[in-house]
Amino acid sequence: MIVVMETKANRENVNVVVSRVKNLGLGAHLSEGEERTIIGIVGSPLPPNLEDELEILPGVERVVRITKKYKLTGWDFHPQKTRIRVRDVVIGGDAVTIIAGPCSVENEEQTVSTAKAVKAAGASILRGGAYKPRTSPYEFRGLGRRGLEILAIARAETGMPIITEVMTPSDIDQVGEFTDIFQIGARNSQNYLLLEEVGKAGKPVMLKRGLSMLMEEWLLAAEYVMAQGNPDVILCERGVRTFESSTRNTLDVSSVPVIQTMSHLPVFIDPSHAAGKRAYVPALALAGIAAGADGLMIEVHPSPDQALSDGAQSLTFDQFAELTPRIAAVAEAVSRTLPAVSGTAAVSL
Amino acid sequence: MIVVMETKANRENVNVVVSRVKNLGLGAHLSEGEERTIIGIVGSPLPPNLEDELEILPGVERVVRITKKYKLTGWDFHPQKTRIRVRDVVIGGDAVTIIAGPCSVENEEQTVSTAKAVKAAGASILRGGAYKPRTSPYEFRGLGRRGLEILAIARAETGMPIITEVMTPSDIDQVGEFTDIFQIGARNSQNYLLLEEVGKAGKPVMLKRGLSMLMEEWLLAAEYVMAQGNPDVILCERGVRTFESSTRNTLDVSSVPVIQTMSHLPVFIDPSHAAGKRAYVPALALAGIAAGADGLMIEVHPSPDQALSDGAQSLTFDQFAELTPRIAAVAEAVSRTLPAVSGTAAVSL
Amino acid sequence: MIVVMETKANRENVNVVVSRVKNLGLGAHLSEGEERTIIGIVGSPLPPNLEDELEILPGVERVVRITKKYKLTGWDFHPQKTRIRVRDVVIGGDAVTIIAGPCSVENEEQTVSTAKAVKAAGASILRGGAYKPRTSPYEFRGLGRRGLEILAIARAETGMPIITEVMTPSDIDQVGEFTDIFQIGARNSQNYLLLEEVGKAGKPVMLKRGLSMLMEEWLLAAEYVMAQGNPDVILCERGVRTFESSTRNTLDVSSVPVIQTMSHLPVFIDPSHAAGKRAYVPALALAGIAAGADGLMIEVHPSPDQALSDGAQSLTFDQFAELTPRIAAVAEAVSRTLPAVSGTAAVSL
Amino acid sequence: MIVVMETKANRENVNVVVSRVKNLGLGAHLSEGEERTIIGIVGSPLPPNLEDELEILPGVERVVRITKKYKLTGWDFHPQKTRIRVRDVVIGGDAVTIIAGPCSVENEEQTVSTAKAVKAAGASILRGGAYKPRTSPYEFRGLGRRGLEILAIARAETGMPIITEVMTPSDIDQVGEFTDIFQIGARNSQNYLLLEEVGKAGKPVMLKRGLSMLMEEWLLAAEYVMAQGNPDVILCERGVRTFESSTRNTLDVSSVPVIQTMSHLPVFIDPSHAAGKRAYVPALALAGIAAGADGLMIEVHPSPDQALSDGAQSLTFDQFAELTPRIAAVAEAVSRTLPAVSGTAAVSL
Repeated sequence: MIVVMETKANRENVNVVVSRVKNLGLGAHLSEGEERTIIGIVGSPLPPNLEDELEILPGVERVVRITKKYKLTGWDFHPQKTRIRVRDVVIGGDAVTIIAGPCSVENEEQTVSTAKAVKAAGASILRGGAYKPRTSPYEFRGLGRRGLEILAIARAETGMPIITEVMTPSDIDQVGEFTDIFQIGARNSQNYLLLEEVGKAGKPVMLKRGLSMLMEEWLLAAEYVMAQGNPDVILCERGVRTFESSTRNTLDVSSVPVIQTMSHLPVFIDPSHAAGKRAYVPALALAGIAAGADGLMIEVHPSPDQALSDGAQSLTFDQFAELTPRIAAVAEAVSRTLPAVSGTAAVSL
Repeated sequence: MIVVMETKANRENVNVVVSRVKNLGLGAHLSEGEERTIIGIVGSPLPPNLEDELEILPGVERVVRITKKYKLTGWDFHPQKTRIRVRDVVIGGDAVTIIAGPCSVENEEQTVSTAKAVKAAGASILRGGAYKPRTSPYEFRGLGRRGLEILAIARAETGMPIITEVMTPSDIDQVGEFTDIFQIGARNSQNYLLLEEVGKAGKPVMLKRGLSMLMEEWLLAAEYVMAQGNPDVILCERGVRTFESSTRNTLDVSSVPVIQTMSHLPVFIDPSHAAGKRAYVPALALAGIAAGADGLMIEVHPSPDQALSDGAQSLTFDQFAELTPRIAAVAEAVSRTLPAVSGTAAVSL
Repeated sequence: MIVVMETKANRENVNVVVSRVKNLGLGAHLSEGEERTIIGIVGSPLPPNLEDELEILPGVERVVRITKKYKLTGWDFHPQKTRIRVRDVVIGGDAVTIIAGPCSVENEEQTVSTAKAVKAAGASILRGGAYKPRTSPYEFRGLGRRGLEILAIARAETGMPIITEVMTPSDIDQVGEFTDIFQIGARNSQNYLLLEEVGKAGKPVMLKRGLSMLMEEWLLAAEYVMAQGNPDVILCERGVRTFESSTRNTLDVSSVPVIQTMSHLPVFIDPSHAAGKRAYVPALALAGIAAGADGLMIEVHPSPDQALSDGAQSLTFDQFAELTPRIAAVAEAVSRTLPAVSGTAAVSL
Repeated sequence: MIVVMETKANRENVNVVVSRVKNLGLGAHLSEGEERTIIGIVGSPLPPNLEDELEILPGVERVVRITKKYKLTGWDFHPQKTRIRVRDVVIGGDAVTIIAGPCSVENEEQTVSTAKAVKAAGASILRGGAYKPRTSPYEFRGLGRRGLEILAIARAETGMPIITEVMTPSDIDQVGEFTDIFQIGARNSQNYLLLEEVGKAGKPVMLKRGLSMLMEEWLLAAEYVMAQGNPDVILCERGVRTFESSTRNTLDVSSVPVIQTMSHLPVFIDPSHAAGKRAYVPALALAGIAAGADGLMIEVHPSPDQALSDGAQSLTFDQFAELTPRIAAVAEAVSRTLPAVSGTAAVSL
């Protein structure tokens, strides 16, 4: 950490900073220029909010943190890319992974038929919401436990692992009884107690990016999970909130290369929630894979115009089946594969 | 609700919309123009996600909701402005209310001395965090129950009601044992299960605006609390996240007149979290009152440069005592009062 | 256009709207519901700011425009996708087009060597700035006319058409003497007089998206050019400004499918300005092509760490030559081609 | 400037940075810690884009600029607050200044009557657009020279100085023939050639903040004007573009204290363009004054529902006359005055 003193700071101001730093058991190196003094702070660990503490001391103009706040999620402590095995599926390897399914679990027929259809088209994990966060208290909020049971039936019939959202700590046990991967939604991405509790539950966690979350904050949220001893975290970009209103959110596709530079964790793209409109989903899905994402999460529904939630952004079975060969082709173009589809991609285009 | 059909929509497309609407027990009025047909939907209540359902039907270009999604928070169902009594303090009346205190409760001496200082200077409610949401898992997270006990001591010594944050449903009972007002933080502003549980706890709730929350979403979050039978919700603007980085967040002072147009609920301004820097707090506090806010929430600390959290944005006792007469003067200029200070405002300027 | 009256609006309010509309030579259809009256306005053309005029009349709650404000840029008036021929290059067809070159023209050697290198690697148009907009008045602002002459030399040596930015109406003649395509930069994207003047200059125009420009505003800016009789406009997404700071701007890759839904104009992606950092350029370039962009604009410099501007985001010759086969592979995966490279793509991966 | 080397940087990497810096005639101080080396760069002036140049050298992790990019607009070179005299009006002193008038000059009667009304109510400068930037090419764009003549007539009748927008360099002479203050609109805030040309024209310039302009960029735009020898620049905040859509833009009231910390230039608030709706204008105007703004720019029209532009946000004469005593009262509460009104403020409330 570097403390930049104001040009008008005096010796006394400098001494206050230095003694503050030394009281914390850290070292302070002075660099006295013609215009101003700069103090380098060495030693570790640095208290997480040390810059705030120092920035308000008299004569301090600015404090610059050089080391990163995140640790477990960064490359320094984990130089291999994280691979996560979920039943027979490996996430984070050469193959890209497609998670697909309905926004909400509505009934057994809808869920099982979707599971079969997306599996046949190349998906390897089934998604479906049993507990749904809704902006309005008057909207459909999911089937709850019955939804979890239906997902388990779909898993039994197809062999696909399942992922579903958990919204509050007291639901973790019940959801964990059924799910293979816990999903933490964008609105709960900084619900730290939930992150810690789910970190203790012993299963992989997919953490969606919050609507106005900085990359570093996202990694720090993942850090809450990992600090509980759970190494299996997947990050999922689903669009951020900007001034642009033609899409529901703005897919920040740059998050793929940026996160991959900062962290060893796999990163997915959710084109459905970013677009908010079905017509834009294929372009965003392909863009995500081309940018290097480890996988996609896509909403599919047997009859989107009858869906109880998010129908407008769900693909039909046919639309999904048309899309996966194109995903496979782009994956191969960037030296990845989509195993279930790849062999036939060239033909089907 | 109005359904605008595409210019190329045919009779069949129109019929599908109409029959869908009628199946829901609603009425449909056709207006057939030269270029296109427009369908007006009448009847109530409209399902909350009806526009999504209709927008994806073939031939539909756009759906426009005319009625509002929020009810209990709107003027239509509650034509008087909400006033909330908390012990001897009335929120939402002619007097503006100042809530002040430290970011975190650190110890009894710090909290009680701050309570006395802010009360003497014109504050009427004491704030202080016992449970702190922190971006990093490695930062100080509050004293927990001991913090609540200290707040209660400060209340006993000063007579001021207290407000403190609750972060998760399982803490509500314990926090409710002590606090007079529950605070829901920005990161939990769409933690719907928490909102519902706190709505059942029988005490007023202050709901901070999320970092990227639309006004309507904010009212819908309040609606979650009110739908549990709790009419006493206070909204608190604390800045939204934008591209501008010279302040920690961008205080959206327009939220005061906008919310007052939409809702009967009192609206407060938190200049401390918006600014992130002490030097900007007074200007933002005065702007909030001038815009018509019902109150302010300001961080004050006996020794900000020793604070365990948010010291950079906390005022000293002296700075706070200098500010309150100015707040009183602006309040009077907009036909409000700051009771404890007003009489002396003219003199002290 | 639809005028939604307030529930409390009276007959007199409705009459004022109707007579206002009729005075403009338009028709008004009343739809009187139980709760409120809705007025449909028919006839054309609707004055561009009619909604503003009507929205402030007493008793009006909201006005909804149904027809689009843009015309020449929309599909309704131009049902074929626009193809633009620039010397031997066709933009907007099956082949994707790569524009590459240095941020600024610095000297003949730098520009010609770059032109040769990018052509060899698959680019078909040369970019280079002779007039540079700079945030600070103290930065390098380009070589001016000498820069244009150097671009012409590079064109003569390689046969590649050139594109360069024009910043002010009085430079159009001079820039037009040399360039094949005029570039309008993001900061000038709403400089309407410049747009009109460049629209008269008889050459294709590439219009970068402004940092906070809505899609509709972008098309309306293009409309300024097209309204002067110039049909050859290319749109170029180069990132928008958001709260995220790990990239210089946030590439809104969704603009590709959204614009293609709204408009027949070709749309390009500029990954260099969006990323601001070289390391992220390849991922964003590939994402753009996968999303369906008609081309890319990429900064390349013989020695980026010596560049007079934007060195941090420029690729070296080698990096560019490594990237183009990957672009070709992704292009083929989405049923496009990169002619100069495609044949060898499979081999070179 | 401080160059932070990567932990894995070697001696050779450090030497490259040092020799690069020395070649520019600057000094380099090495501070070698256990983990990494930090290089302090001293000497002046630092090239404006030096950080970009250094950031891409091998082994460099980050470069931190300590000195500011702006000079003439900063306090360091101009320790007194700028006061600008325009005829009899002084901007930037103890008195706050109200600029008011119609969005567009429509005819003599409209403009002169507005001038008289706003003067009577406390405004001291008349605004009115003769050249209007419009998002769509099909909207009313102002009367041009005839508009300027009408403004001059209004000035002759009332004695009020006038301000009007100039949109392109070739109009500067003509606009300068009439106006007392040049206005540069938000869309032209980074039209650098216009800024330079208007800087040479010898009259005060009001520079509106761009829709996504950082504070530092705003000062650098002002620097373009000041670098031409023109010290009389007024900054005007008019809202920035965010995700919030209930107001046309989001008024960033924090810009008042932030700019006042960075710069000696006067800063105004334009509540009309920020709000976009008349009902919110008073609250934002009062907030701006309370935050310490040096003045306001408010749209007023004799008959807003007949206005050719921006009627929805214009106040009527009566609304403006009701507002100014409230502005005067708030101004006094923050130790400022509104001369024409102040004496009567207490009475009129």
